Amino acid sequence: MLTQQVRRTVFLLHSTCNKITACKNIACYSTTGRTGSNKIYATPEEALADIKDGATIHFGGFGLCGNPENLIDALTKMNVRNLTAVANNAGTDNDGLGKLLQTRQLSKMIISFFGNNSELTRQYLSGELAIDITPQGTLAEKIRAAGAGIPAFFTPTGYRTLIQEGGAPIKYAKDGSIEISSKPRIVQEFNGRKYIMEEALYADYAIVKAHVADTMGNLIFNKAARNFNAPMCRAAKVTIVEVEEIVPAGSLNPDHIHVPGIYVKRLIKGTNYKKPLDNLTLRENVDDKSKPPTAAQRVRERIAKRVAMEFRHGMYANLGTGIPVLSSNYIPKGMSVMLQSENGILGLGPLPTKDQLDPDLINAGSYTTTIVPGASFFASDESFAMIRGGHMDLTILGAMEVSETGDLANWMIPGKLVKGMGGAMDLVASGSKVIICMEHNARNGSSKIKHKCSLPLTGSEVVDLIITEKAVFEVEKGVGLTLTEVAEGFTVDDIIACTEAKFKVSPNIKKMSQIDE
Amino acid sequence: MLTQQVRRTVFLLHSTCNKITACKNIACYSTTGRTGSNKIYATPEEALADIKDGATIHFGGFGLCGNPENLIDALTKMNVRNLTAVANNAGTDNDGLGKLLQTRQLSKMIISFFGNNSELTRQYLSGELAIDITPQGTLAEKIRAAGAGIPAFFTPTGYRTLIQEGGAPIKYAKDGSIEISSKPRIVQEFNGRKYIMEEALYADYAIVKAHVADTMGNLIFNKAARNFNAPMCRAAKVTIVEVEEIVPAGSLNPDHIHVPGIYVKRLIKGTNYKKPLDNLTLRENVDDKSKPPTAAQRVRERIAKRVAMEFRHGMYANLGTGIPVLSSNYIPKGMSVMLQSENGILGLGPLPTKDQLDPDLINAGSYTTTIVPGASFFASDESFAMIRGGHMDLTILGAMEVSETGDLANWMIPGKLVKGMGGAMDLVASGSKVIICMEHNARNGSSKIKHKCSLPLTGSEVVDLIITEKAVFEVEKGVGLTLTEVAEGFTVDDIIACTEAKFKVSPNIKKMSQIDE
Repeated sequence: MLTQQVRRTVFLLHSTCNKITACKNIACYSTTGRTGSNKIYATPEEALADIKDGATIHFGGFGLCGNPENLIDALTKMNVRNLTAVANNAGTDNDGLGKLLQTRQLSKMIISFFGNNSELTRQYLSGELAIDITPQGTLAEKIRAAGAGIPAFFTPTGYRTLIQEGGAPIKYAKDGSIEISSKPRIVQEFNGRKYIMEEALYADYAIVKAHVADTMGNLIFNKAARNFNAPMCRAAKVTIVEVEEIVPAGSLNPDHIHVPGIYVKRLIKGTNYKKPLDNLTLRENVDDKSKPPTAAQRVRERIAKRVAMEFRHGMYANLGTGIPVLSSNYIPKGMSVMLQSENGILGLGPLPTKDQLDPDLINAGSYTTTIVPGASFFASDESFAMIRGGHMDLTILGAMEVSETGDLANWMIPGKLVKGMGGAMDLVASGSKVIICMEHNARNGSSKIKHKCSLPLTGSEVVDLIITEKAVFEVEKGVGLTLTEVAEGFTVDDIIACTEAKFKVSPNIKKMSQIDE
Repeated sequence: MLTQQVRRTVFLLHSTCNKITACKNIACYSTTGRTGSNKIYATPEEALADIKDGATIHFGGFGLCGNPENLIDALTKMNVRNLTAVANNAGTDNDGLGKLLQTRQLSKMIISFFGNNSELTRQYLSGELAIDITPQGTLAEKIRAAGAGIPAFFTPTGYRTLIQEGGAPIKYAKDGSIEISSKPRIVQEFNGRKYIMEEALYADYAIVKAHVADTMGNLIFNKAARNFNAPMCRAAKVTIVEVEEIVPAGSLNPDHIHVPGIYVKRLIKGTNYKKPLDNLTLRENVDDKSKPPTAAQRVRERIAKRVAMEFRHGMYANLGTGIPVLSSNYIPKGMSVMLQSENGILGLGPLPTKDQLDPDLINAGSYTTTIVPGASFFASDESFAMIRGGHMDLTILGAMEVSETGDLANWMIPGKLVKGMGGAMDLVASGSKVIICMEHNARNGSSKIKHKCSLPLTGSEVVDLIITEKAVFEVEKGVGLTLTEVAEGFTVDDIIACTEAKFKVSPNIKKMSQIDE
């Protein structure tokens, strides 16, 4: 922080500066040290007062983490409707943007996944609400681009999926037919690889939550609550921010400011923060060793223990929820693997104890978490720049289907289930090694390893390795599978019998290994 | 900072985590808390050892501010040649990248301006060195794109200039003819405005300087020394960083980290920092009121005092060097105008006293500076996102020529002088109000306000207002000029006589005003 001493000196210097007339070519840059406090509004209602029907609004937060509670509450009491809400997801039925779904003030959402919100799914499938489902990294970059004066950019994310091809249902008609569907994207090749063009996503307002602001509107966020809040500040005509504390200009270290005040038009001090959690899970709750694991749990553990053999010292990895996350429990002692969470953390730690619980610190699955020494926090645009830029060594995800050429489907079952792709499309397009771990067969016994995926793709020719409880396959992308390991209790013929995809059998085939515990 | 207590807790939690086998679906994310200290190299020579002839290298720093002194020194002693250096500018003859020009190790540079380096100009004009001169914001964004997995993007910067049209001399032949010239860019329209496509700028190595690192490679920069260092960390295959201090992992507050360790492959502790300055100017040196101002100084002051009338309370403004900066001395008392410096400062203060001098704190003209309370620091990519994104209210620049349709030329006289455009092309393309202030006529008496610019443009149809010591013109972009004010001692006929451009005379024409002091 600037010490009181330094601050006083700067002020003094400034106040004498205007009097100097003998400055020559090299002038003293001078600005007055006023507080800029005309940005501070007394109430959320005043800060929101000019929002009109039909406005497009960027809403900060990652689900409930870092959502602007006071401003959303005030908005629910206003007579504005037909809003387009841009956000990572819609919160829950009763919190976050869920509140604006309850009041029927939204006519469209642009989000990356559906999350824990049954009302959202109901309004979407009944044709009350349009939803433009967008890969999380593309969403973050479209918002970043809007703030940065970049009208369009190219990304590998979504190439050869519904995102590029178009036709994803945005709005259903009352009769269940598709009234509006997404448009195809322009494809262009750079350095021998295909990319799709995405355009900037502007908004009339950004409604965001930061931790601390100074009177000039400079913002500092707390831990994983930075997420979409930071890029959204830069991408709207009018940015309205609520914070837990407002301090005098000059109190914040200028090197620690995450969003400079130039982006912030209106500021309020929020009150009574509830900070609800999507998923409250404590170490204490999962540490119960009294119950023996179920058969299903044993299957998942077997897969996770094989997956864990893929970790190497010094790796940076992103693990999807479920079995991928479970595999991190088996990282060998003494091996350093830094886990990334796409909501803005590098260096995830274990579940928190009750004492460690911090609602501003959740992982990408919206579970409470901790960090390890050497961790860092960043915003969603930076997080996906890190992913898309090919800086991750390893991505481990679950799947609904994988094809023999390495296609992956894990975000949607048309007419039945739309989870949203979240960050998965960005992760598999990033060029990191992609491991898919899943149960070999679906509940009805059908093969999840297909000749060709029947579901909409998350990525085309993106998978490097498939690990199930029965077998391990190496994928030559675009070519085919090679069976390299078979689990104890299974033969190659067993694997052929339960697998739809054709595959070669490695001449060096061996028993499926498990990490030493 | 994480307290010792918190750190110990995290470590303890971690060390118990691998033993837990009863974790269910919701696993504890776990990573080991190892130091990642295999990133730390003993000497600059070891960290650079594998660099080969012909490598492309991103060099951090803004001129000398934040330049990687130890690594550059070590590179000069290596037998590698034919390097392509990407940097904002080339330092001075004897410092920064100037050292690699002295040793003739560079065959090409990609820079935004020439700066104080006569050897650079000599090598360029004699055909020894290729130079791809690139607008500063485009350079920063091309580097950011390379780190973020974006192969190409669209920008308004450079539209209808040599940058878009191609033909700028990159390499001269020995006979003075142009051997290699720049290629034209693709133009595309979005929302009724034209943009040009620029591609990502990758490098084999990034050689950068940060202030502090932890053993995991997490970086914190100091003040304006962040500049190009931060985005370059993310844009190379191998990023090599020198820092003034290396601290244990967990010592840095994860919310304060500017560049996460994932981007850093090699780390050295630098020694004997010289931190030379391009332009050391102290308040004491310009505060000398003993000499009466010269006639030229009085002309400049008259222009500056008229320019200052354009400031409004709460504005964010970027002022070029010379008269624009001088105008900031006349910002009325009590008015808050935050001055941006495109090397990464919002909230410039006056020149430093000797006690305040900090070589990590310079302005975009490479002069030492201070900041005001409420200031913030950021990297070059963020700085130009702020500019290009239209967040600045006001840009004030000097000019070589302005045309009657609002074209501006201020970066190059073919065959005579190449200054480079620095950030000017980005500033005038940003959509902020653009004021040009300059002496009305060139030294030879010719008009600088032209029917059509004869010099290569900085921007086409970008100027809003022209202020000289003789007159003020409003510009209807693409249409024409209106004379609105005439200085004391001049008539409308005088202005017609000394101005090449045609202009209308406002029915409300008045005497040129000056700010009250």
